[in-house]
Amino acid sequence: MKNTFGTNVSVTVFGESHGAAVGAVLDGMAPGIEIDNEYIKHQLKLRAPVGGISTSRCEDDDFEILSGVFDGKTTGTPICIVIKNQDIKSKDYSDIRSIARPGHADYTANVKYHGFQDYRGGGHFSGRITAALVAAGAIAATALKNKGIYIGTHIKRLGDIEDIGFDDYRNDIDMLNEKQFSVINDKIANIMKERIKSVARSGDSIGGILETAIIGVPAGVGEPFFDTVEGALSHALFAIPAIKGVWFGNAYDMSASLGSEYNDEFYIDEEGHISTKTNNNGGINGGITNGMPIIFSCAVKPTPSIYKKQNTVNFENAKETELTIQGRHDPAVIHRARVVVDSVAAIVMCDMLLGRFGTDYLR
Amino acid sequence: MKNTFGTNVSVTVFGESHGAAVGAVLDGMAPGIEIDNEYIKHQLKLRAPVGGISTSRCEDDDFEILSGVFDGKTTGTPICIVIKNQDIKSKDYSDIRSIARPGHADYTANVKYHGFQDYRGGGHFSGRITAALVAAGAIAATALKNKGIYIGTHIKRLGDIEDIGFDDYRNDIDMLNEKQFSVINDKIANIMKERIKSVARSGDSIGGILETAIIGVPAGVGEPFFDTVEGALSHALFAIPAIKGVWFGNAYDMSASLGSEYNDEFYIDEEGHISTKTNNNGGINGGITNGMPIIFSCAVKPTPSIYKKQNTVNFENAKETELTIQGRHDPAVIHRARVVVDSVAAIVMCDMLLGRFGTDYLR
Amino acid sequence: MKNTFGTNVSVTVFGESHGAAVGAVLDGMAPGIEIDNEYIKHQLKLRAPVGGISTSRCEDDDFEILSGVFDGKTTGTPICIVIKNQDIKSKDYSDIRSIARPGHADYTANVKYHGFQDYRGGGHFSGRITAALVAAGAIAATALKNKGIYIGTHIKRLGDIEDIGFDDYRNDIDMLNEKQFSVINDKIANIMKERIKSVARSGDSIGGILETAIIGVPAGVGEPFFDTVEGALSHALFAIPAIKGVWFGNAYDMSASLGSEYNDEFYIDEEGHISTKTNNNGGINGGITNGMPIIFSCAVKPTPSIYKKQNTVNFENAKETELTIQGRHDPAVIHRARVVVDSVAAIVMCDMLLGRFGTDYLR
Amino acid sequence: MKNTFGTNVSVTVFGESHGAAVGAVLDGMAPGIEIDNEYIKHQLKLRAPVGGISTSRCEDDDFEILSGVFDGKTTGTPICIVIKNQDIKSKDYSDIRSIARPGHADYTANVKYHGFQDYRGGGHFSGRITAALVAAGAIAATALKNKGIYIGTHIKRLGDIEDIGFDDYRNDIDMLNEKQFSVINDKIANIMKERIKSVARSGDSIGGILETAIIGVPAGVGEPFFDTVEGALSHALFAIPAIKGVWFGNAYDMSASLGSEYNDEFYIDEEGHISTKTNNNGGINGGITNGMPIIFSCAVKPTPSIYKKQNTVNFENAKETELTIQGRHDPAVIHRARVVVDSVAAIVMCDMLLGRFGTDYLR
Repeated sequence: MKNTFGTNVSVTVFGESHGAAVGAVLDGMAPGIEIDNEYIKHQLKLRAPVGGISTSRCEDDDFEILSGVFDGKTTGTPICIVIKNQDIKSKDYSDIRSIARPGHADYTANVKYHGFQDYRGGGHFSGRITAALVAAGAIAATALKNKGIYIGTHIKRLGDIEDIGFDDYRNDIDMLNEKQFSVINDKIANIMKERIKSVARSGDSIGGILETAIIGVPAGVGEPFFDTVEGALSHALFAIPAIKGVWFGNAYDMSASLGSEYNDEFYIDEEGHISTKTNNNGGINGGITNGMPIIFSCAVKPTPSIYKKQNTVNFENAKETELTIQGRHDPAVIHRARVVVDSVAAIVMCDMLLGRFGTDYLR
Repeated sequence: MKNTFGTNVSVTVFGESHGAAVGAVLDGMAPGIEIDNEYIKHQLKLRAPVGGISTSRCEDDDFEILSGVFDGKTTGTPICIVIKNQDIKSKDYSDIRSIARPGHADYTANVKYHGFQDYRGGGHFSGRITAALVAAGAIAATALKNKGIYIGTHIKRLGDIEDIGFDDYRNDIDMLNEKQFSVINDKIANIMKERIKSVARSGDSIGGILETAIIGVPAGVGEPFFDTVEGALSHALFAIPAIKGVWFGNAYDMSASLGSEYNDEFYIDEEGHISTKTNNNGGINGGITNGMPIIFSCAVKPTPSIYKKQNTVNFENAKETELTIQGRHDPAVIHRARVVVDSVAAIVMCDMLLGRFGTDYLR
Repeated sequence: MKNTFGTNVSVTVFGESHGAAVGAVLDGMAPGIEIDNEYIKHQLKLRAPVGGISTSRCEDDDFEILSGVFDGKTTGTPICIVIKNQDIKSKDYSDIRSIARPGHADYTANVKYHGFQDYRGGGHFSGRITAALVAAGAIAATALKNKGIYIGTHIKRLGDIEDIGFDDYRNDIDMLNEKQFSVINDKIANIMKERIKSVARSGDSIGGILETAIIGVPAGVGEPFFDTVEGALSHALFAIPAIKGVWFGNAYDMSASLGSEYNDEFYIDEEGHISTKTNNNGGINGGITNGMPIIFSCAVKPTPSIYKKQNTVNFENAKETELTIQGRHDPAVIHRARVVVDSVAAIVMCDMLLGRFGTDYLR
Repeated sequence: MKNTFGTNVSVTVFGESHGAAVGAVLDGMAPGIEIDNEYIKHQLKLRAPVGGISTSRCEDDDFEILSGVFDGKTTGTPICIVIKNQDIKSKDYSDIRSIARPGHADYTANVKYHGFQDYRGGGHFSGRITAALVAAGAIAATALKNKGIYIGTHIKRLGDIEDIGFDDYRNDIDMLNEKQFSVINDKIANIMKERIKSVARSGDSIGGILETAIIGVPAGVGEPFFDTVEGALSHALFAIPAIKGVWFGNAYDMSASLGSEYNDEFYIDEEGHISTKTNNNGGINGGITNGMPIIFSCAVKPTPSIYKKQNTVNFENAKETELTIQGRHDPAVIHRARVVVDSVAAIVMCDMLLGRFGTDYLR
């Protein structure tokens, strides 16, 4: 089940960066969900590189749906989405095939796959695989929107530059989902972009923190002891290359605080619903949703591909060597990763909701 | 699979805080592993409350192994471990059964289980369930030690008090595993304990950060795309009550840094092995172990049970109310949680290793 | 997941024939299902040996529910049921521990578990483990009955003696579930019993075929391509010791017939429901229920423990030897296996129904 | 996981009969296995229709491998195989979209998928999906052959015509795998073909029984209690359309016999290996392989598509109607199903072997 995730709704990914294609099979989605090709394209475009702050490899990301859709709607059977690779310059990699790029999976893949891995462009470890997740996630997100569930992510921090927080979730999410560079405050967005460009000029890369909100999920979803909302989301999120940390609510800033500060007191809101005044627990108590926005953050490490000279080893002859990476790379991936986070979160929430309420829930 | 985790080695937990027992079924462990009852007791004792800084509920934690062990060794069939509950004072809870304790799962459990949940002492959401995980984890840890794999955790931070870092992993781990209060520096340990006592006196609680090291795992373990080491560990770790964040290596401190700082350069160490100079990636590249220590941290929120008056709601009549929690509670659980983290990590590593190398690997 | 089966409802079994206990953890059952201890006892009694036609090992099968039940109802959390072993005569086995009893798992277990298996009485391979499945299945069956779903099994054939077929499913099932020896026609039942006694006198054993009906399952349940109703049921049924074949509807008698004979023509019944005139497909088309009774048969091989002298090998010294089995054994298990089949079927149907309709379906 | 099967090696299928393509993702296969395109084509050809005894729909079954293969060898990452649909005549179906063809999944799919299913040609329920399984199975079978494991299937019975049994497994398997119509005895093959033609002329269809042998699997493979070899194989085999029964060894003929007849006595063969004289248990004791050939049989029901007029219902208006099926159909599928059985068996055995011996076992 290595490349398959989920129980009632599952996704299987395949593909290599410089192979024929990347793709995903989304299984278990309810039948009757309208496929909005424009929305899928929109989401793929949010993942696409942007001038100046991303790689110059430019893929059209034309997707093809091979199955599971009929008359423009999901049938309930597996949906296979394929995105062909086009703009491939594989020769960039052939001369460094046994040089371990620091921070990359070259060495670990070599140990695991005994030299048979497709080393070009990171192969199956490339961020390119996530294009397939975005296409699959777009279908999941459409289904969720039909039930009033919305997901959005902003760059909470890039280097030491911090965005403002969510204010009006519903509007902020809509606004973010239209932005190619998802920062709530536009001035801060510009400062972040300048920082990325400056880092790029120095041949370096930069990381940061994404914060995601999921609103509209009813209380009572989650399957502890092990299949908590936190556990399911984090399991899937850590599959996204570059994500090295996941926390919920204010766990990052407040785990070392006092209980009297951390506890979210309950109250009855104007509409008579049970709510909490604060949301330090990120909408989850005991692994189960409490009806508040589900809030989580992902630490996105700086892209490991940098143009500076680095010390490393050749793992075929086990000798030390120097490496200066060529090719086209992103000085930051955080602005591209956010739609992948949204997509993965959408798939996981569909899984949990269908497990809880049955396969017809999202129709 | 809600209460079962793992593929090749799996653990199933059951039990409620004030029911007859808590327990676990550990399945898939290799046959022939010696059962060291003293070691299991030792590990359970590390989880047991400590005078002054823990709850006064005191369980002997006498465990009984019902199956899967014969002539003192694992048979390879499921190992069921049961720990009976003894020191139960259930009347403490009966009058607040429909009052949502802030930060607890009372309300979410009520929504999910429609009022049929065992509300006494948190029921199935109680930290008490983790005693069973510790007993099961002790068997997993024994198997790992036979292969030269060791796991240890220290309280990296409590409130604003920080422990020193790991220096000599092998020795530090051994030392920590003998300490009831697992802090590397003893002076800092005393300051932390004083802080807990002081917080307890004020009727409050406090949280912090645990840092764990796993050493001796060979390179090449992990099953991306989804079943990365990070994904598998975090999925299981988030099941531990109070854990709200998991990150690997230096993701917390350095995710917003530069690639040239974050990348772990490879070199050939004195023994001729491929190693990295730094370990910001926590021993994992592309979801696969690289042979360096696996390092991760867990954010442990402050215990939600505090003695201060709190605002909340009665979820049966949907009215606001005030609550002052009675009973016996921990002013901090971080020092007790660390052995649970070790135990969960041991089980997950057994699962990944047996999946990679076959069911005979740990014999 | 070796000893765990199921997705939305799962069962984990543990225990050895001559160990401390056998047991099961039933997870994912809806909350609020009444626990009828008398019914569980009744079901266990149906599995218990019967004078003259079964082993003389006699266990009280006193079960204890350790978790997941509160105030007499399921809580929705895992239900651990333990049945202690009492009437153990382990010395019967010690002198033949490395002699492979023909038809038993002694040799294969030795290869897999490298000699560490509990060899006494078949250890984890003993039919005794199924007592735990029966207790768990009784809870599942109670939940199903609340939704109008009933399961019953008769001995369709023993040796060359055949029972009559189901006539009025609802009544036949009720009647069979009260019979210790579940044959529809009482005269045939007596002939079968006489045959078992006669076989027992000759030191031999005998097998047969069980036929099971499940009525009341709505149309539209099943998750092809792989998780068909047939696939899920057969996977679990083959775990029952002695079951070596599973087929649906009239597949045994009619697989080699013509399509015009095999096809079940649809019609509208008196109540206006879509039904089929025949039910050769056993209530399943394309892996999905069609609303007709689900009918399947299990081939139950003769008990391998016979008192006749047999040729075999000692697998420790790899030498041929002769064996005359001592101890207490069943000349037939088919009449005891039927309630195990019912129990396994009940658990699998709960799993499929909750996957289809959500975790609240069986409340 | 509905369309995904397997744990350490898994396969995910997708596609509809008259959609863009069918395909499969084979995951977890060891790296370094040579991809023999000619062999894949050979296997697909064994599944292809044959003049006179099969449908006249003729697909080239050109497959494309989109991922997981590099330099002609498996990389260890997921292998996506796509087979485009070409010879589609969908208009044959449009006028009977709400008429339940007896024996087909039209009605059950409509209930489950609420009318959104792709009804053309059986959609996702079509035997055409199995082409993808055959392509994936060919890769699995190549890996197994490298370890000396061979699989072959013959038509044991068609109508009342019976083939002779296996004699020399190794040679019989090789011979069968070259035959388009896999019957051991050529004269019997001709009689069977004539019968199919005769049945076809009468507008009817016919079923039968397949018998499969897997040789070379070492003793000690299988994961009871639930993941027995029988359970895993049957679970996957029942996914093949038309298969309605699965039994192991001589369970069909001998389940109602005596233990003294059924038990397989052990002996030491000429090469000093522990073997059994008979193989009534089909190479499996207690769910674990014993080193003897694994033998199982599948009941293949007659193709439900017949040209005779049938009574049925229109499930949209719930009225009775008559149906005379048009289009191109198989008078028998058993001769085409056998390579699907071989393929599924190959994938399942890879899964069990890699679970037992680790991910490098098949390299």
